[in-house]
Amino acid sequence: MLARHPQAELAVITSRGESGRRVSEIFPSLRNVCELTYALPDSNSFSGCDVVFSATPNGIAMTMARELMSAGIRFIDLAADFRIKDVAVWEHWYGMEHACPELLDDAVYGLPEVNREAIRTARLVANPGCYPTAITLGWLPLLKAGLVDVGDLIADAKSGVSGAGRGANVRTLLTETADSFKAYGLTGHRHHPEIEQTLLQLSGKSPGLVFTPHLAPMIRGIHATLYAKLVTEHATDLQALYEEAYADEPFVDVMPAGSLPETRSVRGSNICQIAVYRNERRVIVLSVLDNLVKGAAGQAVQNFNLMFAYDEKTGLEIVPLAP
Amino acid sequence: MLARHPQAELAVITSRGESGRRVSEIFPSLRNVCELTYALPDSNSFSGCDVVFSATPNGIAMTMARELMSAGIRFIDLAADFRIKDVAVWEHWYGMEHACPELLDDAVYGLPEVNREAIRTARLVANPGCYPTAITLGWLPLLKAGLVDVGDLIADAKSGVSGAGRGANVRTLLTETADSFKAYGLTGHRHHPEIEQTLLQLSGKSPGLVFTPHLAPMIRGIHATLYAKLVTEHATDLQALYEEAYADEPFVDVMPAGSLPETRSVRGSNICQIAVYRNERRVIVLSVLDNLVKGAAGQAVQNFNLMFAYDEKTGLEIVPLAP
Amino acid sequence: MLARHPQAELAVITSRGESGRRVSEIFPSLRNVCELTYALPDSNSFSGCDVVFSATPNGIAMTMARELMSAGIRFIDLAADFRIKDVAVWEHWYGMEHACPELLDDAVYGLPEVNREAIRTARLVANPGCYPTAITLGWLPLLKAGLVDVGDLIADAKSGVSGAGRGANVRTLLTETADSFKAYGLTGHRHHPEIEQTLLQLSGKSPGLVFTPHLAPMIRGIHATLYAKLVTEHATDLQALYEEAYADEPFVDVMPAGSLPETRSVRGSNICQIAVYRNERRVIVLSVLDNLVKGAAGQAVQNFNLMFAYDEKTGLEIVPLAP
Amino acid sequence: MLARHPQAELAVITSRGESGRRVSEIFPSLRNVCELTYALPDSNSFSGCDVVFSATPNGIAMTMARELMSAGIRFIDLAADFRIKDVAVWEHWYGMEHACPELLDDAVYGLPEVNREAIRTARLVANPGCYPTAITLGWLPLLKAGLVDVGDLIADAKSGVSGAGRGANVRTLLTETADSFKAYGLTGHRHHPEIEQTLLQLSGKSPGLVFTPHLAPMIRGIHATLYAKLVTEHATDLQALYEEAYADEPFVDVMPAGSLPETRSVRGSNICQIAVYRNERRVIVLSVLDNLVKGAAGQAVQNFNLMFAYDEKTGLEIVPLAP
Repeated sequence: MLARHPQAELAVITSRGESGRRVSEIFPSLRNVCELTYALPDSNSFSGCDVVFSATPNGIAMTMARELMSAGIRFIDLAADFRIKDVAVWEHWYGMEHACPELLDDAVYGLPEVNREAIRTARLVANPGCYPTAITLGWLPLLKAGLVDVGDLIADAKSGVSGAGRGANVRTLLTETADSFKAYGLTGHRHHPEIEQTLLQLSGKSPGLVFTPHLAPMIRGIHATLYAKLVTEHATDLQALYEEAYADEPFVDVMPAGSLPETRSVRGSNICQIAVYRNERRVIVLSVLDNLVKGAAGQAVQNFNLMFAYDEKTGLEIVPLAP
Repeated sequence: MLARHPQAELAVITSRGESGRRVSEIFPSLRNVCELTYALPDSNSFSGCDVVFSATPNGIAMTMARELMSAGIRFIDLAADFRIKDVAVWEHWYGMEHACPELLDDAVYGLPEVNREAIRTARLVANPGCYPTAITLGWLPLLKAGLVDVGDLIADAKSGVSGAGRGANVRTLLTETADSFKAYGLTGHRHHPEIEQTLLQLSGKSPGLVFTPHLAPMIRGIHATLYAKLVTEHATDLQALYEEAYADEPFVDVMPAGSLPETRSVRGSNICQIAVYRNERRVIVLSVLDNLVKGAAGQAVQNFNLMFAYDEKTGLEIVPLAP
Repeated sequence: MLARHPQAELAVITSRGESGRRVSEIFPSLRNVCELTYALPDSNSFSGCDVVFSATPNGIAMTMARELMSAGIRFIDLAADFRIKDVAVWEHWYGMEHACPELLDDAVYGLPEVNREAIRTARLVANPGCYPTAITLGWLPLLKAGLVDVGDLIADAKSGVSGAGRGANVRTLLTETADSFKAYGLTGHRHHPEIEQTLLQLSGKSPGLVFTPHLAPMIRGIHATLYAKLVTEHATDLQALYEEAYADEPFVDVMPAGSLPETRSVRGSNICQIAVYRNERRVIVLSVLDNLVKGAAGQAVQNFNLMFAYDEKTGLEIVPLAP
Repeated sequence: MLARHPQAELAVITSRGESGRRVSEIFPSLRNVCELTYALPDSNSFSGCDVVFSATPNGIAMTMARELMSAGIRFIDLAADFRIKDVAVWEHWYGMEHACPELLDDAVYGLPEVNREAIRTARLVANPGCYPTAITLGWLPLLKAGLVDVGDLIADAKSGVSGAGRGANVRTLLTETADSFKAYGLTGHRHHPEIEQTLLQLSGKSPGLVFTPHLAPMIRGIHATLYAKLVTEHATDLQALYEEAYADEPFVDVMPAGSLPETRSVRGSNICQIAVYRNERRVIVLSVLDNLVKGAAGQAVQNFNLMFAYDEKTGLEIVPLAP
């Protein structure tokens, strides 16, 4: 995305494992798109850069952040190092000591639909997780309007296998995941506190969330099925509520009443498609996005656009690839 | 399954569309397994048979049942014609008049784990739907023990595409369903009243069920994720409850605490694998089965075994095909 | 592609089956991309248009072509009606009488790498089939250089299921095609004469082609594995031959020696990636493309660019979607 | 398969990596099927056994064979250690020194359709590779009849991802292989010399084979498309030739003329389905099997049945799982 972004110039890309190899050798889909060669990261790697995007495993970015901040380089972290404001909570879920807790206050949680203004001036953006993006966007209008019981929320979410990353792992082999379906994280998933943090921010109430992630036999896509209880008897027009809430959002598409969002309809794009239903027991929201785009890289570029005062859609007007 | 069942002799198979063609010509996987030729159905098709398995679209079996009953032929219907006891409810959901409502009282809902004794002597068995089997088996021990709020149940279920049948349909083409995920039936699914009927039978209480089916990009398999609220503060050992409830069931496998059932682990078999979790807000049950076996044909054979006093496992000791 | 093409204005889209419905209702991936409504086709549908793209079943375009030509509207047919120059051959393979054989001489076979100059001025372009594009581009440098025995060519080609179109068809259901692989067309495929026609054009010799298409369990992509015998003992550097032959081609990417092209690396793009190998018995060429893009719609847009003197890459600089 | 084999008693299963864990913990599909626990292999692991099946990486079995032979334990190696008679060839392709070349003469290549009698009395069986099984069975009748040019054979073969084993590997992740297709091994595949060895045995002539393996986005299955030139002008009835050649073979199914074998039709079974076509240029044979069954474990059980004088089909009458 950055390679084709009209306002971005890719200066350097680093990797310990792949240094010396061309990006397009490892990813032939990028032949003639990105002809950079991976460099070994060192302390001068990013001198002269305006911004660094970090897409490392959790725990790496926090060791680099202080130095980049000092050098006046803005920083977008796609991992989880700066997503949780409460250090103790972070250290509990991620199982390590935080390397620069003093930067957490500065870090802005990079969900534009929630924190747009803060992102514009942020030096350090914590790009949200894929599940938190799908789930938060799905409930945002209800929470802001105070219409649902924040203490009784259920998020049943399904993700494609790319959510697990590109590491060698028996559990994500095609032979282990294709033509099958399973839940995971039943005893706790790291995105749980991240979601609850934003639910609290939006509702002002301590949330009670049940979150069940599942692995679906597909490459990309998240489908969140969200169950909430209305706390009002009023005949609120939820369809109108959602359409108004997102009327000015370039990347949230409230579908017509009765729609059934499919992950393939947003494949490769930065769009989150949402449909809202109501029956006598629950409001059910269906929220889909591409976990690698609006759930990761695309959202990072959206944040970059905000941080550098470009049109928020620059480089992101990608037509979804369907079928 | 019947072709290899040691106690069954396949006498005749009928089809209007395929009459005159060999079964193994259409399904080459059955070469040397079943060498019958499809016959045109007529009034004498099944004379001499002890039992007829009907796997037609909804609304066909009910036009044949009276005649078969009169001829003393027992009948296992894999469609929905005899699943709902309340004719009005059935006619509402299936959009047609019932052809033989007088037989509904005789029909036994063919879920052996619930109705085993009645199935043994049934003349007419209504083989359950795939979702109802996965969901009912998932909640059965909790309902019998009266531990959960029957008025607040959520079933988030995911099915492979074979659940939609083998008819020509744009919506189930590989190009429309592969590498994608979607919900459907948000405004009502025919399995809803079927599930509620059994929930009522098991709990004695009027159920309040939210049921959301989804289409997963795989051939076979149902994964039901079930959310229920405990109505007791007691520290009931749910793992023990489930293990005891199903201790004698040949086809329900309560997995060890902490397990994550996968649909592939029961692929091709008649087994339903179940795991139970409890957190501060909900009991979460994961229930998986093969929708074409325990959710359809295998369960029909299980019922057949019961009806004819064979060992319930006869012909069903199939090792799941994984990977 | 046309909706986002900076030089194209989509004036009208017609469909008998879907008239009155919005394109984006049927294809939600096009929400906010294309907001046209399908119109019923009639004789005035295209008045005022400069060009019509026809993507109908075979046999329809030829009934419209004469009228469009008369009205001075240029025409790009994505079906097969104008691909074969020899009417008798066309009528044999397509099983119908040709409706306007007098236009065949005017029609230009729209493979830019072969017929670029003729396409620029063409009134009627016959957009090539997906297999012929992959196969012809794979062999083109060898044929032009006269290096292989044109009488002994084998093309073993594999296609994703989208090659079969979007019609309701049992044979292309996910349940019938996923997790399986098969050959088809062993007694003759309509792309055979189309390929041979171009092989003859390129080599000047009567070709002898064995062509075996296969159905692979994926949505998009063609992989052609091409076997040819060298007719020379000379140590021609085939890698250099290919690189030179395609040096100026914007959409043919000769990969470095030793590469293994994957269909996913060109998914969604108009690129054909090619690798060439030589062993003691055969030259083996691997040629991959996206059957819906370089094998259909993308190539049509490339032809449109040529016909209207736009930069050939306009609207086609799509980064492949991988993974 | 062995767990359900009526003549086999599973005495011990060993693994360094998984010792102490139950087989059914790692493979929940085997719950209630196999309740063994992995043992650490040591010198006494197999004392008391009649036969050992070895399914280790290449190079391990050869270090155990001498000891097992001495102890009078028969040995079926599913890896490649004993498949190639020529030590130098083996060492070239497998890149290591052979640990017990003196046993190679004793080893019988375990393809029952070729070596049935020798297998009956073998002490050491080298179970064939998956590609060699599909390809050899596909050409066997032609080679025995001397009808084709053995010096000009092309095997274009496609395999599911399980052929690569269950090791952690980026290249076989679902995200890297699903919805894509690629060739590999263009500069040489270890099954090449194994195939040629059998081609020589069957034809008596030095073979010239082009063999191109491909990776198809599916779990199981091999589809070999085989091209050979007839050396006779006689109007041999190839369909009859194949039917006769395999008339008594329990696991080779020659399909009716005009059939298109699909890998799913043999999924999970020990069957190889074959169709034969002839056009003016080539005989084209389509040969499909399940790489994990007839291409590995099932064939090993078939060899076991022969070695111990059980009915060859014992434990192998598995109905393919389709869809």
